[in-house]
Amino acid sequence: MNETIETIHKHRSIRKFKDTAITEEQLDAILSSAQQASTSSYMMAYSIIGVTDEKKKAQLAEITGQNYVKDNGHLLVFCADLHRHTLNATPEQYEQMTPNLENSEHFLVSAIDAALAAQNAAIAAESMGLGMCYIGSVRNQLDRVDEILSLPKHVIPLFGMVLGVPDAQPDQKPRLPKQAIYFENEYRDHKETLNEFDESIAAYYQSRKTNTRHDSWTDQMLRRFTNPMRMDVTGIIKNKGFNKQ
Amino acid sequence: MNETIETIHKHRSIRKFKDTAITEEQLDAILSSAQQASTSSYMMAYSIIGVTDEKKKAQLAEITGQNYVKDNGHLLVFCADLHRHTLNATPEQYEQMTPNLENSEHFLVSAIDAALAAQNAAIAAESMGLGMCYIGSVRNQLDRVDEILSLPKHVIPLFGMVLGVPDAQPDQKPRLPKQAIYFENEYRDHKETLNEFDESIAAYYQSRKTNTRHDSWTDQMLRRFTNPMRMDVTGIIKNKGFNKQ
Repeated sequence: MNETIETIHKHRSIRKFKDTAITEEQLDAILSSAQQASTSSYMMAYSIIGVTDEKKKAQLAEITGQNYVKDNGHLLVFCADLHRHTLNATPEQYEQMTPNLENSEHFLVSAIDAALAAQNAAIAAESMGLGMCYIGSVRNQLDRVDEILSLPKHVIPLFGMVLGVPDAQPDQKPRLPKQAIYFENEYRDHKETLNEFDESIAAYYQSRKTNTRHDSWTDQMLRRFTNPMRMDVTGIIKNKGFNKQ
Repeated sequence: MNETIETIHKHRSIRKFKDTAITEEQLDAILSSAQQASTSSYMMAYSIIGVTDEKKKAQLAEITGQNYVKDNGHLLVFCADLHRHTLNATPEQYEQMTPNLENSEHFLVSAIDAALAAQNAAIAAESMGLGMCYIGSVRNQLDRVDEILSLPKHVIPLFGMVLGVPDAQPDQKPRLPKQAIYFENEYRDHKETLNEFDESIAAYYQSRKTNTRHDSWTDQMLRRFTNPMRMDVTGIIKNKGFNKQ
């Protein structure tokens, strides 16, 4: 196992940080790594907002319900961005662009571009001994986050990422067995593997250092999915010109 | 710059491979790295299909218009997967889950989960000296790819990834300047930076080793976006139960 694969395998989400800002050099290495990720047809359809303003950080901590969103070395918000592609378009060209700007294809492209860049940023940060955690809960109030970051039409926040010097070393959360996520040539149902995983994850929740509980993966998922969640995301992104047709 | 950041910075998409399969050990390291990526609320909402069947590879090469989709060491197709979450649901629970299964939030979650896993796979492969390229053009005929891979409801292909021993060392494609993708505290327009980038990219297209042409980033984007592209993706993913409400 080489150093890079070792870094990848040591990942855990860090939610407690030392009171130390990350350095300019670290931030530059993280951002340039993000930019080196593959991008669909050279679209580079994402932007990153670094939030340093204390008031904005406090607002985002409230929206996400996570205090460490303000108490960390640096906070990034990754956005899908198709605005840049329109900057030099004539009104006629802009009109011709609209079907693409608004279809699911380019919503997907921009979300995937942003995620590939983000994961490069994550790995680069972790390779330097920093810790990180994705913040999907910026989508708790997507319209407010959008406003706080002054995003124009065709730009939406997707997720945040906190970065900093780790002040905790949580357990690593078990992953599904390979047989439940990797299939050769065609999809295979994997209920049995899932049930075995549920047993082992139940044992994990019983044995871990903190937050011990009775639970399984399937039960967690049933709890999550049976409660309608972030149903407003659909409308908010349509209002911003994404995913409309 | 450490080894991992160096690997990230050396990335270029490889589209020509030696006639060598990747080893089981390499594939295992790639897949276990993919699985270690962060996942939204532990959903692990993706699956990976490894395509080894020659007939299926030939079909995918035709769909994507890329010959190297069949001539490489290994072909992966990354899929958004919310099917697994329904496997142990009662009919009543399944009905209660439907708003979440069908909303944009969980379409996003599954696309982002898949992309984070994929980028870990990409970095792991490159750290071992392998080359890779994403294949967005599986979305040229998403319904055919879906059928070839026998994907159930709530599973859709998102993109492919070819992996193999590189038989080419293409130029690295310049990225947007940092000032065009990273902003502090709020979004800033960056038309001027973009115009400067267009000039430098025009010079790059004139000077590179192969495929020399007169072009700029903005012109490429205008050409792409003014031609409606993959408009059928919207309907196909709705038919599979994604992104419907």
